[in-house]
This record gives sequence, C-alpha cells and structure tokens, in this order.
Amino acid sequence: MASSSSSDSSAPQTPQLRKDSVTNRWVIFSPARAKRPSDFKSKSPINPNQQHQQQCPFCIGHEHECAPEIFRVPPDNPDWKLRVIQNLYPALSRDIPAAEEGNNSDSGRVVVNGFGFHDVVIETPVHSVQLSDLSPREIGEVLVAHTRRIKQLMSYDSIKYVQVFKNHGASAGASMSHSHSQIMALPVVPPAVATRLGSMKEYFDQTGKCSVCESNSKDLLIDVSAHFISIVPFAATFPFEMWIIPLDHSSHFHELDSEKAVELGGLLKLVLRKMSLQLNNPPFNFMVQTSPLGDNASQLPYSHWFMQIVPQLSVVAGFEMGTGCYINPVFPEDAAKVLREVKVSP
Amino acid sequence: MASSSSSDSSAPQTPQLRKDSVTNRWVIFSPARAKRPSDFKSKSPINPNQQHQQQCPFCIGHEHECAPEIFRVPPDNPDWKLRVIQNLYPALSRDIPAAEEGNNSDSGRVVVNGFGFHDVVIETPVHSVQLSDLSPREIGEVLVAHTRRIKQLMSYDSIKYVQVFKNHGASAGASMSHSHSQIMALPVVPPAVATRLGSMKEYFDQTGKCSVCESNSKDLLIDVSAHFISIVPFAATFPFEMWIIPLDHSSHFHELDSEKAVELGGLLKLVLRKMSLQLNNPPFNFMVQTSPLGDNASQLPYSHWFMQIVPQLSVVAGFEMGTGCYINPVFPEDAAKVLREVKVSP
Repeated sequence: MASSSSSDSSAPQTPQLRKDSVTNRWVIFSPARAKRPSDFKSKSPINPNQQHQQQCPFCIGHEHECAPEIFRVPPDNPDWKLRVIQNLYPALSRDIPAAEEGNNSDSGRVVVNGFGFHDVVIETPVHSVQLSDLSPREIGEVLVAHTRRIKQLMSYDSIKYVQVFKNHGASAGASMSHSHSQIMALPVVPPAVATRLGSMKEYFDQTGKCSVCESNSKDLLIDVSAHFISIVPFAATFPFEMWIIPLDHSSHFHELDSEKAVELGGLLKLVLRKMSLQLNNPPFNFMVQTSPLGDNASQLPYSHWFMQIVPQLSVVAGFEMGTGCYINPVFPEDAAKVLREVKVSP
Repeated sequence: MASSSSSDSSAPQTPQLRKDSVTNRWVIFSPARAKRPSDFKSKSPINPNQQHQQQCPFCIGHEHECAPEIFRVPPDNPDWKLRVIQNLYPALSRDIPAAEEGNNSDSGRVVVNGFGFHDVVIETPVHSVQLSDLSPREIGEVLVAHTRRIKQLMSYDSIKYVQVFKNHGASAGASMSHSHSQIMALPVVPPAVATRLGSMKEYFDQTGKCSVCESNSKDLLIDVSAHFISIVPFAATFPFEMWIIPLDHSSHFHELDSEKAVELGGLLKLVLRKMSLQLNNPPFNFMVQTSPLGDNASQLPYSHWFMQIVPQLSVVAGFEMGTGCYINPVFPEDAAKVLREVKVSP
C-alpha cells in the first residue's frame, strides 16, 4: 500500500534533489506529498480588513510612542509618507562598544559584543494600507529609504553586513500589523551570507559566469520589466518562493538608483498581488540578499544582489532543523507556470 | 525613548553574539526582547487530553490502513508495543535508481534522483499516550528501534546519512497526533551535518579535544545520569533548546546498546517532563545529531553524537531566513538554571 503519485502536471513525478548554485543548499522536491501546485492556499491568511488599532504606535499622530526617529519622507513634514525609526526592542545595541572577537579563556567559547543597529521602516502612515496597496512610486520610496539607511550604516567600520527584511503577518513573525520592514546592521558576516558568497564564487571560478545572472531561464520566469525579472529559483527552498533579480550585474542593493527603485517597486507590487490572489493572501517574508560591506564593499564579479519573497505555506520541522535540508512539494517549473498565468487586474 | 533592559537575572544584560563550536552558527542573545526566563510559556500547548481518533491509522487494530510494516516489537505479535512502518507519503522514494550526482547540460544545474527511505516509528499502540508517558524502558525500546532501522539502512551504499527526528504537535510539523517519530535515509550528507562535522573537526585540529565532550560545564548543566548529561548548549539557537550527550565519546547514535538506551530513555523522559511543566506543554521537535555513514562510518575523534530537543516558542522569520543567524532572547545559563530547578514528581 505504498503511495502512488498521480498528477497531470508536466513536471517529473519522482522525487528529486536539487542543489542551488547560489545558496549551496540541497532541496528535496517531493511530489508524493503535494497537492496540485494550483491547489496551494494559505491556511492562515492575513485579514485584509484589519481594523484600525487605536493603540498602534506606527500610525500617524502616534510618533511620540515610538523609539527615536532616524529620518522621515518628506523631511520635517508632519504629514509624512514613511518614517525610519529605531526598534523599541532592538536585538542589537548601538550603545555598547563595537564588536571585538574574543575567546573566553575556558573551552574556546567564541563571544562577541552585541553591537549593531536594528531599525524599522514604517512604510505608510495609514494602518489599513499594505505594501502591495502602495503605488510603484511609493514602494520605490520605501526601497530608497532602505538604501539610504544602509549608506548611513556603512560609515561604521565594524558593521559587516546589513539585512533588510519584512515580516508580514503574525505567523511570519510580525509583532505589529501596521505595514513595516526592518533593517538590521550586524558586526559579523552571517553564516547564510558567507555560504551564499562562497557558493557564488565557486560557480564563478568554475564557469566564469555569475550564478544569479544565469538564473534567467524561460521555464522559471514569472514576469519581466526593463531592468528586472521575477523568477522561481531552480532549487527553491520553499513552495512558491520567488526572487526578483536585477538584469544588470550588481553586487550591492544599496547602489539601486531612485528611477530603478520605482521599476522594482512595480515588479514587487505585481509579485505580491499575484501571491495574494493565488495563495489566499498568505503571511510572507521578504529578504534582500546583498553583499557584505566594509573591506569587501566593491563590485564583485560573482556576487549579485536579489530580493527573495517567501509565502508562509509550510512548517519548518525536525527534518529541516536537523539537516538544513528542506522538502518542497512543488517543482519550481510548476510554481513558475502557475504564477506566470495569474491574471492581475490593473 | 530607547528601550532599557531591566532584570534581576545574573546573566549579562547587553546583547551578545556567540558562535557554537559544534554547529558553527552565530546566535544573537538579546535580553531586551525577553521576558524573564521563568516567564516563557507556549502559546499553543498540546492538549494533553486529546480524544481518541476513531480514524487514526497508527492505533492498534488499524494496521491495514498503514503503508507496509518493516518490523514490530515484539515480533509477530498482534499485541505490539511499537511498529516501524513505511511513510505513506514519503519525501524520498525507495523505488527509483540510487542517486548519481549529475549536471544538467544547461547552466550547471545539479540534480540527484530522490532515492532514499522515509519511515515512521509508531511509539505506542495507544492514541492518548505521549512519549513522555512511557517508562524509561519503553522509551529505550523506541530508541533501540531507531538504531536497529539505521543498521538495516546502512547496507545501502548510496545512503550517506540517516536523520532520526520527532515532530510533536501540529505547529511543530506533526501531521498525526498519535505519538510517532521518523527516520529519513538520505543519498547526500545534508548541509547542516557537513557544517557541523567541519566545525567539530576544526575545533579538534586546534585544541586536540572533542567540542561536544567539552560542552559539559557546570553553568549549562540540567541533569546527569551514569552515562549521559542534559545541558543547554553554550550558543543555543532556540530558547530552552536542550542537548542530551553521551559522556563517553561516540560518533554514531546507532552504536547505542540496549542497556544505555534505557538510561537515555530515563533522561529523555525527565527532559520532556521538565519542558512540559516549565513551558506549558509546548509543541517540540527532537533530532538525533549523528555522523555520516558509508565510507566515513568509523569512529571519529572529533565527532560525537547527541540528541537535540527544541520546544517551539518562537517563529523563524525574515531575519533568520535571510542570514541563517538566530535571535535567542534567553541566555543559556539562565535557561539551564530554570530547567535544573524544575521539580518533577517521581
């Protein structure tokens, strides 16, 4: 009574392991565990009609309830469109000495001071507005706020990497429902970034090509604009994971100019609306995957920034925690086809 | 209006980054985001009085609803105590050719056939009984079933690693509430295992000592038996993460003998009961962290197996997905102290 696969999909129907040349991660594609790709829906959608919370400190008029502001757009204007502020509960502290790697005397324990920055970008003054409700120009302004803050943080020698990310929905880790993203500046190059850089460099050394530039293939494409593409990566870690990639090779997200930011805003809006329509408005995360700062801040031929968008459809459990290997029930070609064909009203 | 830390805990109250010498993972310890260590409780506890499900195929008498059995204890007995069966929805297939690493012609895509095994250990015939309800001897029999199945799987040359794990509770990934664990035999050494092995080897090369043997320190100890200790690891990835470590250096979990399995069963039972009492019966995962099979199956001076137990108290979100770096609001010394002092009735 072993299970049998049955599907009318064109993808191969035996399980397959794929290794991503960017992340260097093995992923198990396992159709026996899958519904049809078009049947995936979030079980815990975000309520689109969230009520205005009287208590929300991110709403316009509640600025005094927040940690200190870093900047706002437009500047000095009580009628702001977005604000960058300190996180009231920062994971890292800007008020302690910068990191110095040091070994504790007993048993070689490696400890570093938790110096760093943890900021919040309030993406809109209005509680009920989500990022995908904003215009391409407004989303572009959010992205430019990210790049502007990174450029400020680069002035600290001890900051090695800046992670821009967004948690949308409580089960994706958002503690506030008011639309916001976060910027965390770290005193170390984090492990997944070091692994990604090493994997991209290895690919470059072997082929003379950038692995991200090479990700552009017809069967994985979702949408395209003048300078960006959206794809499902070849070895997507999560079902319906999506990447937005700049077509011109570029190592650092913070070099994005304001004109291309508007174009990227348009493609991000399209990706988020397609995801919401197809997958029942799921909680999601997005992460900007960029290159380290400091000594390595120059353009690198093998390192290419991109934006990763992950709808929350599955649970990370014992197998993934134990092995670092993920099981994805949807083949990337199938997910790309489904997302390519979603019709979004203008 | 930056946040201020306040606590009567004895742990340092500025954030700290620690790198684990076993997992090679950076973890940010961030007290500003924490409740007191003793205030941590699961928000979604497992209901201890789950009703018997008439439909549960894992219950005694429903064997015909399951995928094929591999073995049962005692053998050939309708009144079984545990059963090892195939997973009805396996992530890997035992029915396809064994893995051969191969590059697809275009753009160096690495693909491997999804050959492997995915088995289930039904830990008790009774639906309402949880693992921690079993006696040390019965838990020992479950652990011996794991080791026995690993020894069978070792006969396949193409199997490189066997992951034993348990998901307890729906939000920890369990699709069945009847108490069970899983065994997945993989055709590759998974990335987290390769990283762990490399990190342990580096530590050994530098110090001449095993990093896991060195984990035994008074401030991180929870409990101790004749041949095992339970600890909170120095750079615990998750709040209240626990490890059970054999005191005698050993590379492979499957070399555990049946006498020590009963002792380990007793310490695992104690850890699970303490976790349930202290943290409000949380969903949890456990993972056996062991060494690769095949050519590398011999005893290694730097590699030491252990069992990792992780209560589900926090959400993996954008920061963790982007960086591979985790934020833990509870210092390991504080978690160990709390767990050391939990009183469990005999």
